[in-house]
Amino acid sequence: MSANHSPGPGHPRPEQSDDVLLLTPGPTPLHPRALAALHWPVRGHMDPDVFAYNDGIVASLHELYGSGPGAFAALLSGTGSLAMEAGFMNLLEPGERVLVVSNGVFGDRMAEMARRQGAAVGLVSFSLGEPVDIERVRAEAERFRPKLLAVVHGETSSGVMNPVPALGAVARETGALFAVDAVTTVGMLPFAMTDWGIDYAYTGSQKCLSAPPGLAPVAFSARAMAAIEARRTPVASWYSDALGMRSYWENGEGGRSYHHTVPVQLHWATGEAVRAALDEGAEARARRAALLAAATERALASIGFRPLVAVEHRLATVLALTVPTGLADEEVRRRLRYDHGISVAGGLGELSGRIWRLGLMGENARPEHYLRLMDALARVLSEPHLPALFEEALAPVA
Amino acid sequence: MSANHSPGPGHPRPEQSDDVLLLTPGPTPLHPRALAALHWPVRGHMDPDVFAYNDGIVASLHELYGSGPGAFAALLSGTGSLAMEAGFMNLLEPGERVLVVSNGVFGDRMAEMARRQGAAVGLVSFSLGEPVDIERVRAEAERFRPKLLAVVHGETSSGVMNPVPALGAVARETGALFAVDAVTTVGMLPFAMTDWGIDYAYTGSQKCLSAPPGLAPVAFSARAMAAIEARRTPVASWYSDALGMRSYWENGEGGRSYHHTVPVQLHWATGEAVRAALDEGAEARARRAALLAAATERALASIGFRPLVAVEHRLATVLALTVPTGLADEEVRRRLRYDHGISVAGGLGELSGRIWRLGLMGENARPEHYLRLMDALARVLSEPHLPALFEEALAPVA
Repeated sequence: MSANHSPGPGHPRPEQSDDVLLLTPGPTPLHPRALAALHWPVRGHMDPDVFAYNDGIVASLHELYGSGPGAFAALLSGTGSLAMEAGFMNLLEPGERVLVVSNGVFGDRMAEMARRQGAAVGLVSFSLGEPVDIERVRAEAERFRPKLLAVVHGETSSGVMNPVPALGAVARETGALFAVDAVTTVGMLPFAMTDWGIDYAYTGSQKCLSAPPGLAPVAFSARAMAAIEARRTPVASWYSDALGMRSYWENGEGGRSYHHTVPVQLHWATGEAVRAALDEGAEARARRAALLAAATERALASIGFRPLVAVEHRLATVLALTVPTGLADEEVRRRLRYDHGISVAGGLGELSGRIWRLGLMGENARPEHYLRLMDALARVLSEPHLPALFEEALAPVA
Repeated sequence: MSANHSPGPGHPRPEQSDDVLLLTPGPTPLHPRALAALHWPVRGHMDPDVFAYNDGIVASLHELYGSGPGAFAALLSGTGSLAMEAGFMNLLEPGERVLVVSNGVFGDRMAEMARRQGAAVGLVSFSLGEPVDIERVRAEAERFRPKLLAVVHGETSSGVMNPVPALGAVARETGALFAVDAVTTVGMLPFAMTDWGIDYAYTGSQKCLSAPPGLAPVAFSARAMAAIEARRTPVASWYSDALGMRSYWENGEGGRSYHHTVPVQLHWATGEAVRAALDEGAEARARRAALLAAATERALASIGFRPLVAVEHRLATVLALTVPTGLADEEVRRRLRYDHGISVAGGLGELSGRIWRLGLMGENARPEHYLRLMDALARVLSEPHLPALFEEALAPVA
């Protein structure tokens, strides 16, 4: 950096040379197309170029989510957490019932957000890492008769994949709308909003899509939009109101309306990342994650790491492994970060200190990145065999 | 762009060569330091580099806002409109009274947002472009006894600067908290949160700071934070809850807590833009805007443009000029955009078609940019004298 780009006092900047490999469950390393688009020229939020580009994003999001006729897809100007909140804000009026299915930190966050909206919240709770029991959910839904059923598809905190299609059937049987947090799934794994009976789904730009953080691609079904149009009370959040968003994203009677200043640079980057994901295809991306997960699990099993989650419930994009006894979790991750420039996530909440969470989303699911992790671990732990074991485990498919 | 960066079907991208000069009241052209920082390497939201950089941002924001001891400053992960909403969400509980002073689109938006929160909203309303009558506000505040008084400092829709210090005195006299939308003022004009008795202020990254859109720098006074801590009900928005934000931005007992994934690239860019604004200084920046406004007004007066707002109430950062009779507003702005690559904003709401709004914030307040506008207008309108008149008007200060 030239001298005139040096920061003022109090803004220590990361060194350009000190690039850190993100093997966390988000943010993920930027896709080259997203990175390039971040440098495209700036435009006003009402510029025809932006509207034309946004139309392309909308079409791509419908493809990504598998959403049907009359659905509304757009980018919400905030992170995935804002999109989680936006679902409850749009789909529930004060006092209405929502049944949240939770087996982790993000499911619990759903319940907390819904409570803050003044909804009547029912919670079907399972331990961290435990799979969802559909029959318990069905019984509770039949008793509670919620307006909305909500679940996290891939529970990032534990690496569990929840049975969204089966839960969608429960929602249909009981007449509930169905909201799905697709933060760690859509864009990397097959996703079928219409076929699975989903009425609201969302992700964050920085997860499976490998765009910069700051945007939430969202999709509402036609049924969800009709429910929002039929509300008796306005959505408490003007900013996240789907009808307000739609007035900007879709051509109405008077054309497009100004709503708020959208983050145009992030639109470019996220749009390119979505296209890149569609070009590769969900099946190919899912296979990429699964092969790497298997090889990583096998190599790390040799030093005592064990999968937290039974294979049939395991989330393909977040490999949660229990830390072996005697391995100093924080110290090892600190050395990976500072001596080897690799970020790896530990556990959240009650799993803190007990697990590692390895991201296999978008651009972090690359063999060369995980080989670099094996090399670094070989040095930090004096386990020189790790890289070869990893490569051997990967070999049959290479 | 190389072939592998070409967009997929449906994502028409703006041409690199087709760079558009933004002379709108936001977004503004990127500051070179913000642009450079947008390319810094990515980091996780819990990375020590990010925390160190965020600490620098916080210190700079306190300087920018002139906030006092015990205040809380941070970047909210959304645009200025989310920050507007966050003020009402944090500072009001259901049924509590807020008095909104409005003389434009953004003041009216404040009232709309507060109503959606379930607040009891009083509105002191003035016509678009009309200055605020302090005595009317004082009388209404004494009668209504609001918990919160809220006003837009610089009304972007009409180019009026509202009397924030005098309104701050009214808030103190009546025991109200005081929220100020500083979207078009802070970062370009002197701002003194503590001295003016402000309890909550916010802006958008893409306005006076000339960073990319997508973040809202916010500041809460110590008194505001105490009011939030004393709430009987939780803040309806988990995402915008100031106490949740603080757990991430400040060191608590257990260190920093994960709240949500902050947009790291936008943190870099906004942090650099804030430093650049502080390095130049508010007085120098205000002078830059004022000189350009005067020269622009004088040059455009020669073809019939007239200031909408009396000089003593005029906002220095948004020059609102009435379009002369016979000038085809939309057609001329369309030609500026397509033939000359310059974006200029028209009026919003009832001022649509009646005014132009010229941005004089951060990087759009540069003489060379406005000279380019004069050159373009000279051609579009066949008024060849415009550039010389503009340069002459600017000359005494050059």
